[in-house]
Amino acid sequence: MQKLNVIKIGGNVLDNADNLERFLTDFALLPGLKVLVHGGGVIASEIGKKMGMEPILINGRRVTDANTLHLVTMVYGGLLNKNLVAQLQARRCNALGLTGADANVIPAHKRPVKDIDYGFVGDVESPEQVNITFLASLAEQGIVPVFAALTHDGEGNMLNTNADTIASTLAVALSQNFEVNLVYSFEKKGVLLDVEDETSVIPHLQPDYYAELKEKGAIFAGMLPKLDNAFVALEAGVNAVIIGHAADIQDIAAGGNAGTRITL
Amino acid sequence: MQKLNVIKIGGNVLDNADNLERFLTDFALLPGLKVLVHGGGVIASEIGKKMGMEPILINGRRVTDANTLHLVTMVYGGLLNKNLVAQLQARRCNALGLTGADANVIPAHKRPVKDIDYGFVGDVESPEQVNITFLASLAEQGIVPVFAALTHDGEGNMLNTNADTIASTLAVALSQNFEVNLVYSFEKKGVLLDVEDETSVIPHLQPDYYAELKEKGAIFAGMLPKLDNAFVALEAGVNAVIIGHAADIQDIAAGGNAGTRITL
Repeated sequence: MQKLNVIKIGGNVLDNADNLERFLTDFALLPGLKVLVHGGGVIASEIGKKMGMEPILINGRRVTDANTLHLVTMVYGGLLNKNLVAQLQARRCNALGLTGADANVIPAHKRPVKDIDYGFVGDVESPEQVNITFLASLAEQGIVPVFAALTHDGEGNMLNTNADTIASTLAVALSQNFEVNLVYSFEKKGVLLDVEDETSVIPHLQPDYYAELKEKGAIFAGMLPKLDNAFVALEAGVNAVIIGHAADIQDIAAGGNAGTRITL
Repeated sequence: MQKLNVIKIGGNVLDNADNLERFLTDFALLPGLKVLVHGGGVIASEIGKKMGMEPILINGRRVTDANTLHLVTMVYGGLLNKNLVAQLQARRCNALGLTGADANVIPAHKRPVKDIDYGFVGDVESPEQVNITFLASLAEQGIVPVFAALTHDGEGNMLNTNADTIASTLAVALSQNFEVNLVYSFEKKGVLLDVEDETSVIPHLQPDYYAELKEKGAIFAGMLPKLDNAFVALEAGVNAVIIGHAADIQDIAAGGNAGTRITL
């Protein structure tokens, strides 16, 4: 099977023009098939403030009311997505901006209200629902999809959707046709044994070692959901999940030593 | 050759929720191949005002400075485009949102500064530069492109671009592969002999009759650029240009009597 990298960039790449330029230059040069996924929460909050909107948080989690949905649809789907596309095109990477609504690539539904109503937030349907026929046709044409963190409910509403989830859903779905590596690029060198020490990157995580570290409480709590999801993606067919620094994307994509490589 | 309709909707459709719902329901039901093109200037101005931005006009024409470019990229490429896509998906029309930057479909360049600097405004390259291979592949997959009035300069900048021009450029380019009708949907029943009288629609315009009406001053001056451009599109291979009311789109697309039909 052909190799394909699904690469998610975190806020620290988008929020800093220098980091972004460097990342896009590296990304454009990556050989082979690739998909980019981005969020943009910090920039959405900044633009919301200019419009007199304050982020709505319940228990520290963001709520997407109708105005917030308009805001993220504008910022993620328009401003950030189209500027990423234009900047990749300038680097001779034939990028195409997408949300989950376009060509119904990622069907989703509004999160059911239990204790808290998170508003227009999307939970994606299973990876089997992803329109991989369309994505495979883009790959054949040398077109590189750039996904904003938005889906839709099939009833006319866009939905604000976690970018990590979009990346893992796409990675699992594309594993039917390709050998997929899922890369989470962020502001650290990888998963650290000591959050204060950037040199303490764990080079390789497998289920046994992860269980051992988890039991010892040796992994930063904020990293646990990402790692749990990484193992779910691997169980569902993804070849490897790599967590590492955006500045190391070329080494990571080439299968080098940068970042934390997670496999079964 | 297969038939294909390129349909541009004017502000009066986008700005009114009832008109839009009706139009989208009709559009989704149109048989055969179709492309939708939209602008959104009124809504962009409204959102700009919320952000403290006043439209910048020189001699009555809008100037696109860097902030205005961000605004229209958000509103046309994000808010309006993605909501149109979601609403068409809800009507089982497999819509895909695009700008000229995506898959480099419509290459353009920043308008050269002569007397007036219009800022980040795009003049499209010739229709031969349009990526019709990609558009034909969408058509084969039953995917309906929905274009926002944005292009890019190939150097990393998005460009604000006239929606009528995007529609006619696409229509001319697609005429290489399809029998294309170009439809301008707006708030009038067609080209009127008497602007005060909605029943005075000219049913059919051909070059001789147009020249005659033009000489007599019988056509509303504001309509002349659209009509001149219509004849340019026809000369370049478009089958027919139809100007009519958005509420009549089904009749127009079926080749009925609604609107003004312009042919060579």
